[in-house]
Amino acid sequence: MTNSTDYHMTPDQFRYWGKKIVDWIADYHERVEQFPVLSTVKPGQIRAALPAHPPEHGEDFGQILQDVERVLMPGITHWQSPNFFAFFPANVSGPAILGELLSAGLGVQGMLWTTSPACTELETHVLDWVVDMLELPEKFRSTGQGGGVIQDSASSAALCALLAARERVSDFKCTRAGLTGRLVAYASSQAHSSIEKAVGIAGLGRDNLRIIDVDDKYAMRPQALANAIRRDKESGLTPCFVCATVGTTSSNAIDPLPEIGRICRDANIWLHVDAAMAGTAAICPEYRWIHAGLELADSYCFNPHKWMFTNFDCDCFFVADRTALIRALTIMPEYLRNPASLSGAVTDYRDWQVPLGRRFRSLKLWFVIRHYGVDGLRHHVRNHIQWAAEFARWVQSAPEFELVVPPPLNLVCFRHRAGDEFNQRLLRAINETGRVYLTHTRLSNRYTLRFCVGQTHTEHRHVERAWQLIRETASALHGVD
Amino acid sequence: MTNSTDYHMTPDQFRYWGKKIVDWIADYHERVEQFPVLSTVKPGQIRAALPAHPPEHGEDFGQILQDVERVLMPGITHWQSPNFFAFFPANVSGPAILGELLSAGLGVQGMLWTTSPACTELETHVLDWVVDMLELPEKFRSTGQGGGVIQDSASSAALCALLAARERVSDFKCTRAGLTGRLVAYASSQAHSSIEKAVGIAGLGRDNLRIIDVDDKYAMRPQALANAIRRDKESGLTPCFVCATVGTTSSNAIDPLPEIGRICRDANIWLHVDAAMAGTAAICPEYRWIHAGLELADSYCFNPHKWMFTNFDCDCFFVADRTALIRALTIMPEYLRNPASLSGAVTDYRDWQVPLGRRFRSLKLWFVIRHYGVDGLRHHVRNHIQWAAEFARWVQSAPEFELVVPPPLNLVCFRHRAGDEFNQRLLRAINETGRVYLTHTRLSNRYTLRFCVGQTHTEHRHVERAWQLIRETASALHGVD
Repeated sequence: MTNSTDYHMTPDQFRYWGKKIVDWIADYHERVEQFPVLSTVKPGQIRAALPAHPPEHGEDFGQILQDVERVLMPGITHWQSPNFFAFFPANVSGPAILGELLSAGLGVQGMLWTTSPACTELETHVLDWVVDMLELPEKFRSTGQGGGVIQDSASSAALCALLAARERVSDFKCTRAGLTGRLVAYASSQAHSSIEKAVGIAGLGRDNLRIIDVDDKYAMRPQALANAIRRDKESGLTPCFVCATVGTTSSNAIDPLPEIGRICRDANIWLHVDAAMAGTAAICPEYRWIHAGLELADSYCFNPHKWMFTNFDCDCFFVADRTALIRALTIMPEYLRNPASLSGAVTDYRDWQVPLGRRFRSLKLWFVIRHYGVDGLRHHVRNHIQWAAEFARWVQSAPEFELVVPPPLNLVCFRHRAGDEFNQRLLRAINETGRVYLTHTRLSNRYTLRFCVGQTHTEHRHVERAWQLIRETASALHGVD
Repeated sequence: MTNSTDYHMTPDQFRYWGKKIVDWIADYHERVEQFPVLSTVKPGQIRAALPAHPPEHGEDFGQILQDVERVLMPGITHWQSPNFFAFFPANVSGPAILGELLSAGLGVQGMLWTTSPACTELETHVLDWVVDMLELPEKFRSTGQGGGVIQDSASSAALCALLAARERVSDFKCTRAGLTGRLVAYASSQAHSSIEKAVGIAGLGRDNLRIIDVDDKYAMRPQALANAIRRDKESGLTPCFVCATVGTTSSNAIDPLPEIGRICRDANIWLHVDAAMAGTAAICPEYRWIHAGLELADSYCFNPHKWMFTNFDCDCFFVADRTALIRALTIMPEYLRNPASLSGAVTDYRDWQVPLGRRFRSLKLWFVIRHYGVDGLRHHVRNHIQWAAEFARWVQSAPEFELVVPPPLNLVCFRHRAGDEFNQRLLRAINETGRVYLTHTRLSNRYTLRFCVGQTHTEHRHVERAWQLIRETASALHGVD
């Protein structure tokens, strides 16, 4: 097919290459196990294979796709491999990919209700569905004072929660008047790094984030939080924000929300709950205990783009009262004024987030929920948690390994008994096989391996083989010593 | 096709429905002119057609696609219609949609170099290509102290620029220590609302954004900027950030960068240049004058997702020196530590943006540049600017209309001579025809219609018919009066 005289891809070309890429993706997911999970290219290797300058004239699309295969694929670390047990998963699934495709084809902007009402209303509606699915507190529904919105990530959700907290504690003056170095925020030593990042961005200063101590299960100690708040108040500072975590990144620890929530309520401090990966577990009634006390929170987020088979970016962020959030983020320049917004009858999601523009991200979440049904999603979450528990039992029964903490859900923290340096070498050796990908953390200042079960296509056999590989690699390494 | 026992979409289902959606998108772009450009649904209408609760069991994918057509399409405002002349365009194109699709299928995270080296290296490389294409100052190349990164939007780019500015002016202490109410930022009265939003988010306080007066072409008056900076310094405040605009949202006005840049350099103030839509024009040598003086800027952004046929989100953000940006945004928790990052030989783009996670967004930009070639992109930009100039001549030759300001590029600001109230009614009547979509602004406090030529598939005939429709609608309305 030749290019059109106006340089656009013709409809026929689009159909042809679009279907090629659909097939390519299906093939990719079928052959993904053949690739080393962690890319082994050297820094600069991909760039070196690319032409130094952009093409003056358009190229054949087939050539571009050949370069994807030839140049880029060696530089891909395969997050969609069923042997990906690193970090947290960032899952895709068939319906989510197709939702992203449809969103790209429609190409609408959801910044204002009026700029595509369906984009805003489907999002509000699906987020209310999520309240049902996870049995979240009623106050997070859009039908009251609260509501949900899709953010790109839990990092951005935490930042927005903090901005709302700043605004509320200052009687809605902070965004206008600026910070004066008196606001303080709190999170446990196990909270995600995005909390410290948000505290820096929002101008509180990272030194004004109090790092609260944790117990032997790496959950926040409420008494330590209460003490820190009291000390800051005595020093004339203004506590404004607490982030509690349901499922910390290092070890999936669950902060005690009931106690933390009461402390925050008594001190009138905004409580944000970050359940980035673990929140998904609450679609199963038997795991809803992770959210006990959530009714005391002012905001909450979890990421369907981690463990609910919905392509990144899709973070569901809920607030109990949207007033402070909107007051921190709204601006109405003349060029965005429109009858629907002025009527007050609609939601303009640009006032719920940092950027102005936004994609039609609820499409993919809607596709996922409708394709799988709630029971289909539960099926996978239950499997993952069960397999993680099984993996933990294997660790416990292997004399050379130890379990660092009992896994509450789908993340197992463990280590070889031969010490930090050995565990580092072990991790490197495991990942160098290319057959699995694991990452590490430090718990109680000891180097710890993390094994997170949650990739869309992980089956029992992958978990089994991973454990076998880990043991064998450890034996081989230990034999060398 | 029946669903699989594990609830996943089978590869065959994915191929089948993926190709259906590819065809649906091609059909959509072919029939998009049939829809009213601006959706006419009432608030709540879309939600009312959706089931109150999520499905317990998975549904047939064909049913979901039928609901897209039946339930959602009436609520779509068609940004991809060639009759979309509102706001700024948010263009898609064939290669960009396919890049987004491939990115969704690969599902990699580009937060660290190591989490998919190709994702980082292609981005760095393509952003260096953009330096070539727009003939941007050499200091924005990744090969020196600077470099480019893809942000979701110009709003986020402005926020990141401001955070870097805060950091630099405080000797790299601000993010750590917090704000103390002494920092001041500057932008013209015509700057985008995202600047005020960023100043609020970053904790400076919106009251500490000085709104600088503009000249009769709505460009910033450098002397007014210099005066404001002097006054603030005399008051003991610390000027830290100036945002100049190349192509303001209201009227495409171009701030005088050489004068503003010299003021900023002399006062050691961070200069950010926001060329969100207009920057694309610089791919044509004859329009590179819009960037005269850009060598004095510390950071710069423009949006291929506006006028360069690349799906939202794709903002290209460049810094001349990445030190302050990275120091404002980096955090290295144990669970993200990895040999490549620690070696210092790679770029970790999570340190260049607010969120941690990131999609493989450079794929779509790479596809667009390679498919069109630089000359293909120029072809369209030249057409759009020429047609806008033609539209402006028609306005000038119609006695009942007036041109508010000569259009520097592809945005025409005009009004009917019958006054504000008439122009408001005229805009409503034009949009209610469904045949075009225009928006408005205020210039010199007068209600002004905006006509922005830049949609991917806009042809000369669309511009011609739009003008015809505008005149006819005005005549009909005027006759009624």
